[in-house]
Amino acid sequence: MFSIDHLGIAVKSLAAAKAIYEKLGLTVSEEETVAQEQVRLVMVPVGESRLELLEATSENSAIAKFIAKRGEGLHHVCMKVPDLRAAVARLKQDGVRLVSDEIKTGAGGHQYVFVHPASTGGVLLELVQG
Amino acid sequence: MFSIDHLGIAVKSLAAAKAIYEKLGLTVSEEETVAQEQVRLVMVPVGESRLELLEATSENSAIAKFIAKRGEGLHHVCMKVPDLRAAVARLKQDGVRLVSDEIKTGAGGHQYVFVHPASTGGVLLELVQG
Repeated sequence: MFSIDHLGIAVKSLAAAKAIYEKLGLTVSEEETVAQEQVRLVMVPVGESRLELLEATSENSAIAKFIAKRGEGLHHVCMKVPDLRAAVARLKQDGVRLVSDEIKTGAGGHQYVFVHPASTGGVLLELVQG
Repeated sequence: MFSIDHLGIAVKSLAAAKAIYEKLGLTVSEEETVAQEQVRLVMVPVGESRLELLEATSENSAIAKFIAKRGEGLHHVCMKVPDLRAAVARLKQDGVRLVSDEIKTGAGGHQYVFVHPASTGGVLLELVQG
């Protein structure tokens, strides 16, 4: 099954950005720090999807660099696909530009690959096994 | 119930942008033109959400202006909320910046309001009645 797993949103201030979602009546998770990525984040479940609000903890964080270049806003869309391995094989065969050539394994063992925005209409698209 | 209704993505070429989603095995709708908004679009259902790929049909289209300024990419996130009227009242009371002060009625009678990106972490957020 396909679904939108989460939207990663680069923000300057978690405290400011999460306020609006709390006001709407959504539940915002506790803040969590991911040292490896140099980010602090909260998750906001919305139906079967989640908003992932990302604040940089260092100037070297990819999120800090993104905001410096583009301002706050959507950083990536993460989509669950039914067969990640087959999807990646098909995209590579068709010459679609991936950020890295191979499927990577992240924290918690989940497998993912990023499709370059040049192929998706300007959206950094993360694919994960559904 | 809250859910992500759709992600509006501003693209230069529908034909190019939709190809990747077809390759992933998603179903892409027929192209549809919305003269009033000066856009041509396709919808890509993804679980309970949809991607809305938007191509300008005129230089005066909001989508053309968006791309000229920011490049291709996410234009807005549309979220269903359980009680739109109550949500808007609460946001206004809290001084959250809305793009227009009142709930508007769109094609097909659906009701919507846009929250300014300054309040949401850089994302133009459309709220519709769930």
